[in-house]
Amino acid sequence: MAKEIKKIALLTGGGDCSGLNAVIQAAVKTAILQYGYEVYGYKFGYRGLYNNDLMPLTLESVSGILGRGGTILYSSNKDNLFDYQVEENGKMVKKDVSNVGVENLKKEGIDALVVIGGDGTLTSARDFSRKGVNVIGVPKTIDNDLACTDVTFGFNTAIDVATEALDRLHTTAESHHRVMILEVMGRNAGWIALESGIAGSADVILIPEIPYDINKVVEKIRAREERGKLFTIIVVAEGAKPKDGEVVVQKIVEDSPDPIRLGGIGNKLAADLEKLVKNHEIRNTVLGHIQRGGTTGTYDRILSTRYGVKAVELVAEGMFGNMVALKGDTIGYDSLENVIGKLKTVKPDDELVNIARSIGISFGD
Amino acid sequence: MAKEIKKIALLTGGGDCSGLNAVIQAAVKTAILQYGYEVYGYKFGYRGLYNNDLMPLTLESVSGILGRGGTILYSSNKDNLFDYQVEENGKMVKKDVSNVGVENLKKEGIDALVVIGGDGTLTSARDFSRKGVNVIGVPKTIDNDLACTDVTFGFNTAIDVATEALDRLHTTAESHHRVMILEVMGRNAGWIALESGIAGSADVILIPEIPYDINKVVEKIRAREERGKLFTIIVVAEGAKPKDGEVVVQKIVEDSPDPIRLGGIGNKLAADLEKLVKNHEIRNTVLGHIQRGGTTGTYDRILSTRYGVKAVELVAEGMFGNMVALKGDTIGYDSLENVIGKLKTVKPDDELVNIARSIGISFGD
Amino acid sequence: MAKEIKKIALLTGGGDCSGLNAVIQAAVKTAILQYGYEVYGYKFGYRGLYNNDLMPLTLESVSGILGRGGTILYSSNKDNLFDYQVEENGKMVKKDVSNVGVENLKKEGIDALVVIGGDGTLTSARDFSRKGVNVIGVPKTIDNDLACTDVTFGFNTAIDVATEALDRLHTTAESHHRVMILEVMGRNAGWIALESGIAGSADVILIPEIPYDINKVVEKIRAREERGKLFTIIVVAEGAKPKDGEVVVQKIVEDSPDPIRLGGIGNKLAADLEKLVKNHEIRNTVLGHIQRGGTTGTYDRILSTRYGVKAVELVAEGMFGNMVALKGDTIGYDSLENVIGKLKTVKPDDELVNIARSIGISFGD
Amino acid sequence: MAKEIKKIALLTGGGDCSGLNAVIQAAVKTAILQYGYEVYGYKFGYRGLYNNDLMPLTLESVSGILGRGGTILYSSNKDNLFDYQVEENGKMVKKDVSNVGVENLKKEGIDALVVIGGDGTLTSARDFSRKGVNVIGVPKTIDNDLACTDVTFGFNTAIDVATEALDRLHTTAESHHRVMILEVMGRNAGWIALESGIAGSADVILIPEIPYDINKVVEKIRAREERGKLFTIIVVAEGAKPKDGEVVVQKIVEDSPDPIRLGGIGNKLAADLEKLVKNHEIRNTVLGHIQRGGTTGTYDRILSTRYGVKAVELVAEGMFGNMVALKGDTIGYDSLENVIGKLKTVKPDDELVNIARSIGISFGD
Repeated sequence: MAKEIKKIALLTGGGDCSGLNAVIQAAVKTAILQYGYEVYGYKFGYRGLYNNDLMPLTLESVSGILGRGGTILYSSNKDNLFDYQVEENGKMVKKDVSNVGVENLKKEGIDALVVIGGDGTLTSARDFSRKGVNVIGVPKTIDNDLACTDVTFGFNTAIDVATEALDRLHTTAESHHRVMILEVMGRNAGWIALESGIAGSADVILIPEIPYDINKVVEKIRAREERGKLFTIIVVAEGAKPKDGEVVVQKIVEDSPDPIRLGGIGNKLAADLEKLVKNHEIRNTVLGHIQRGGTTGTYDRILSTRYGVKAVELVAEGMFGNMVALKGDTIGYDSLENVIGKLKTVKPDDELVNIARSIGISFGD
Repeated sequence: MAKEIKKIALLTGGGDCSGLNAVIQAAVKTAILQYGYEVYGYKFGYRGLYNNDLMPLTLESVSGILGRGGTILYSSNKDNLFDYQVEENGKMVKKDVSNVGVENLKKEGIDALVVIGGDGTLTSARDFSRKGVNVIGVPKTIDNDLACTDVTFGFNTAIDVATEALDRLHTTAESHHRVMILEVMGRNAGWIALESGIAGSADVILIPEIPYDINKVVEKIRAREERGKLFTIIVVAEGAKPKDGEVVVQKIVEDSPDPIRLGGIGNKLAADLEKLVKNHEIRNTVLGHIQRGGTTGTYDRILSTRYGVKAVELVAEGMFGNMVALKGDTIGYDSLENVIGKLKTVKPDDELVNIARSIGISFGD
Repeated sequence: MAKEIKKIALLTGGGDCSGLNAVIQAAVKTAILQYGYEVYGYKFGYRGLYNNDLMPLTLESVSGILGRGGTILYSSNKDNLFDYQVEENGKMVKKDVSNVGVENLKKEGIDALVVIGGDGTLTSARDFSRKGVNVIGVPKTIDNDLACTDVTFGFNTAIDVATEALDRLHTTAESHHRVMILEVMGRNAGWIALESGIAGSADVILIPEIPYDINKVVEKIRAREERGKLFTIIVVAEGAKPKDGEVVVQKIVEDSPDPIRLGGIGNKLAADLEKLVKNHEIRNTVLGHIQRGGTTGTYDRILSTRYGVKAVELVAEGMFGNMVALKGDTIGYDSLENVIGKLKTVKPDDELVNIARSIGISFGD
Repeated sequence: MAKEIKKIALLTGGGDCSGLNAVIQAAVKTAILQYGYEVYGYKFGYRGLYNNDLMPLTLESVSGILGRGGTILYSSNKDNLFDYQVEENGKMVKKDVSNVGVENLKKEGIDALVVIGGDGTLTSARDFSRKGVNVIGVPKTIDNDLACTDVTFGFNTAIDVATEALDRLHTTAESHHRVMILEVMGRNAGWIALESGIAGSADVILIPEIPYDINKVVEKIRAREERGKLFTIIVVAEGAKPKDGEVVVQKIVEDSPDPIRLGGIGNKLAADLEKLVKNHEIRNTVLGHIQRGGTTGTYDRILSTRYGVKAVELVAEGMFGNMVALKGDTIGYDSLENVIGKLKTVKPDDELVNIARSIGISFGD
């Protein structure tokens, strides 16, 4: 029963994403000011739930964090309590320790849990919901590839950063008659490349959803030359793929769980073009983690605030097992059962793809 | 018949707004690359149509303008050919000279006219449409108060600028225990104040749609003091109104058509608070025209591009008399007949108003 | 003797200025890490010294503040302990209470005081030094008008903000053929107007040091028109003066200690030009307090860090009674006795003035 | 004789650098407005001088370019007319074609040449000067490693970009308890790493001038852990070197004149730390070309303007064979003979190095 809610907890899981603190602030303010809840945060995502590592969240503790990157609750990757690495008899084994989490919630009297995270984090949220925990999810991914919501927070800040990088590369490309490549995030979905490519006046956008032919890229470079444009800007999602075959990513520390990546698609593309386009210098920049942190953009501050408020309203209404979601112009929600495991990728005939083609941008196909 | 379109023209009217050049670029690229049209621009809005002051628009002439503020076609305020100031017998009189515009279009063989502007400019667009001219409208207002479209371009850049200003005022307010007021644009609608207020962590948002009581503002300042917050940030739309009575704006040059405004709501508010809140210094900043120009934000670059492409698609489809419009997630259109004269103001129970109230923001009511 | 220093205190006085927190962070880190001092901060400048309102400053308390505007020590204007407003026999009187400050320092065992402030704050610093207090000054003014140091921190961030505003006004001016005025800070010295005017491509720069003739400004507007430039950008320091007569600033709340200013030089200029230049619209923007706060620019972060480190080094060397100062490329120091009451204004033949004239900028003279 | 100057030409050589257009604008305006010169630009640096590829530079052609990245004159790397690649008898050979340049100058009646470039470009400038050409140099390098001038333009914009990247990485590092590495430009000199490291609150700065010991870097990470700081920010110049041995940079296209670099110092460092610091995730970002282009910062706009004006003044005074230079607070000049081949590197006891050490930054030594 929603009436009985007195104490709620928040946790943030997965990679960094601009807007996490804005969600936290809005949820805490709403919970305290509108509903009089006591609010806590588990530190380091589910790891904190397992360790019962709890901090009180007050109006004071969320003061001034709206625009700040990161998360005051800290986060960790890959901490799935349903398949958690623990020591047993001197050996590390993986086992389901989710009951520890459930017990900790009970012990602390936490009536509801607001989970802010991406597909992995929300899968656990769903699984806790199935175990009877009162869970509300908040979708987080800078890639914007979560199903059931039009936009995820952090995405617009990422395209702001990528667009500014493209603006900077533009002047150099033009002055020095170069082909400049910018590799942006997006393993499975090309949204960042697509939107920053349009906003940053890219000539070629390569995304995972539309495998590219390197010869078509060269054709575009040549077509521009014929029009007197002696430079070309290419934005490529990290998950973009050539039509023929794989991108072999070299790694420095092979045995590491998260090896240093040498190369990747941007470098492959640069190497391939270096062979095919002798009359231009080619340069590749991998934007990397600066897409994830720092001051949160205006759009994401507002979207995150809407998500945070709505999450607590769903708690108050007892609408557990749901994730807040942006649908067109309004904030609604969807069942966590519907969301998980579905990827929102760029359709080849998406409006934005057509827009891009209309203004002459090539997808290398 | 849409098939017969060969030559089109663009014009921009009304006040400055980030994204105008992005619309122009997208429209010109689409017209040339997708449809093979010849494209022209009338300079200075309708005045150019009257004077037949035309410039060719080519891929070259729109190169590099996507992110730049202003309009390469120039603009002018208040040039309504249906009520135009002309000299007659040595005297300035106002008369309907719209036929001159119609004739100029015929003379130059312009098959369709894309008009980018706000309520005034689009009213004339509708009137030319009624006279049989093939017109497509593109909505422009930084105030976001045009009916029939969810968002107008330029609005998000304006809230970016206002939010950054609020961020800057914040640190000073906090260090010096001040009440800081920021007056932003919005004569009839409070959207800029509302969204920048949420994004910029304002404590009080005053908008035309919700008349304020100065005592409620003082109450909010006092309530914050009690919580140990010895500063307050107020964002006020230029059209905000106290519940009791008018804001008398003093003017320096009374006989001027557009007199220098001295005062305005921000100054009135500061003066009133100065009397009521003796223990804080009060400061007012009027953001003014820096909301209108400069580098266009990412969101507006994409939205403007979508509008520009769609406008030319509507030309190609012969869908004249319509205005392109954002509906939820997609770009559609609406009849110019529906759009004109309706203002999209903030409803007192708008989702964003409720969001703001949930996190403790006061509207002074 | 420098050796005996064990405990030091910091205070910040006067108006807000980007870089205050960077000075505090550098001083605290250096004091703790290099010298093992205990460090305290007086809150609200000298008022805190009077009230013995002290907070400990640790590595933790200065963590993350380098780029943040404002001051974690808070500040207050006009709190001069040598002429301080106190209640006596039920009446407010002004008297010298500096001995209370001296006693408080002794009572707390503070061996040295680092005072960060402008001319007023540093005057008191000198006076405490004369009374035997171990004082080191750090120069602060966004106006850059303090003597004996080449640059003060906060100044470069202010010109960044002013330059970005000019960039934004530029596109509107150009598109709409306007005369755009930007009023920036600088009551006695025109440095902000001068440097932002050069960086922001102003056509006219008006500063207190070079009284202007409104007819010369009009001449410049006309000369630009003749070259086909139908817009003009004017940046004016708040202290700029016409050759003939005063600027009467209207005030709303006359009896207030710090009345709301209506008008000021930007408005006067706009009103005057409105009468003289009928063929352009004139617009004035008063940049105000957004010049003072917010994220600190790169240059100021480094300069402030250098000042903060040097201040503590001077403490350690027992070089009391001095102010840190930038001399060409290096950080040195100068006696507080030399600094006070001298204003570093723009000389009419300053290199930057000549640079500006060389590229065609008018000073209205 | 200086009096006889009537026609001058400009050229820009070497890699991109923010501020090139500002130098060009200031030089052109000064030349035309103050001296009545005719001004031309050679396109693509010395290649344009060889091909006599000339464009007129007027007030109109330099309008609006002050803050724009790149160079309207275009540039090329490695075009040394004293050792130029030409076709002879069907084979590509290198030969001295500088006389062609000298002849072209005569043929066009160019009385003086303003050469804007780095060490390579200025070496040719000196050599042309030795051949009797009236040359003035303007120093350009984002690395700030040119001798005889305190600061080169483009450097401060590069540290702005690097500092903003560090700000963004900071929030992620803190939230996720990571070691974040940022590789910035600086092959021979560590100025960008040093200044952005201070401004961006780096914990470790690695530069070519101070070879590092990886164990000292690990010690710093551990020392921070002990203070409860579970993250570390490292900024590394591309030319930084470990004490023991070389950094082997893998290349994808070995036979290319400018091969794609895989790896480099940032990646090596990440791989090494991955082995030594098991309890943190390590991430590396290579900032690359976004340091070179885009909107020019305020400081560089002013510095470039000063250089451009001074270069033309030196032309007017007949002071050929010199390079303009910033000395402390003023713009002076130095003989090209003195400048060439000398590198201004970071001295291990440079004031800024000491500043950084004072606030606890490690250089890994």
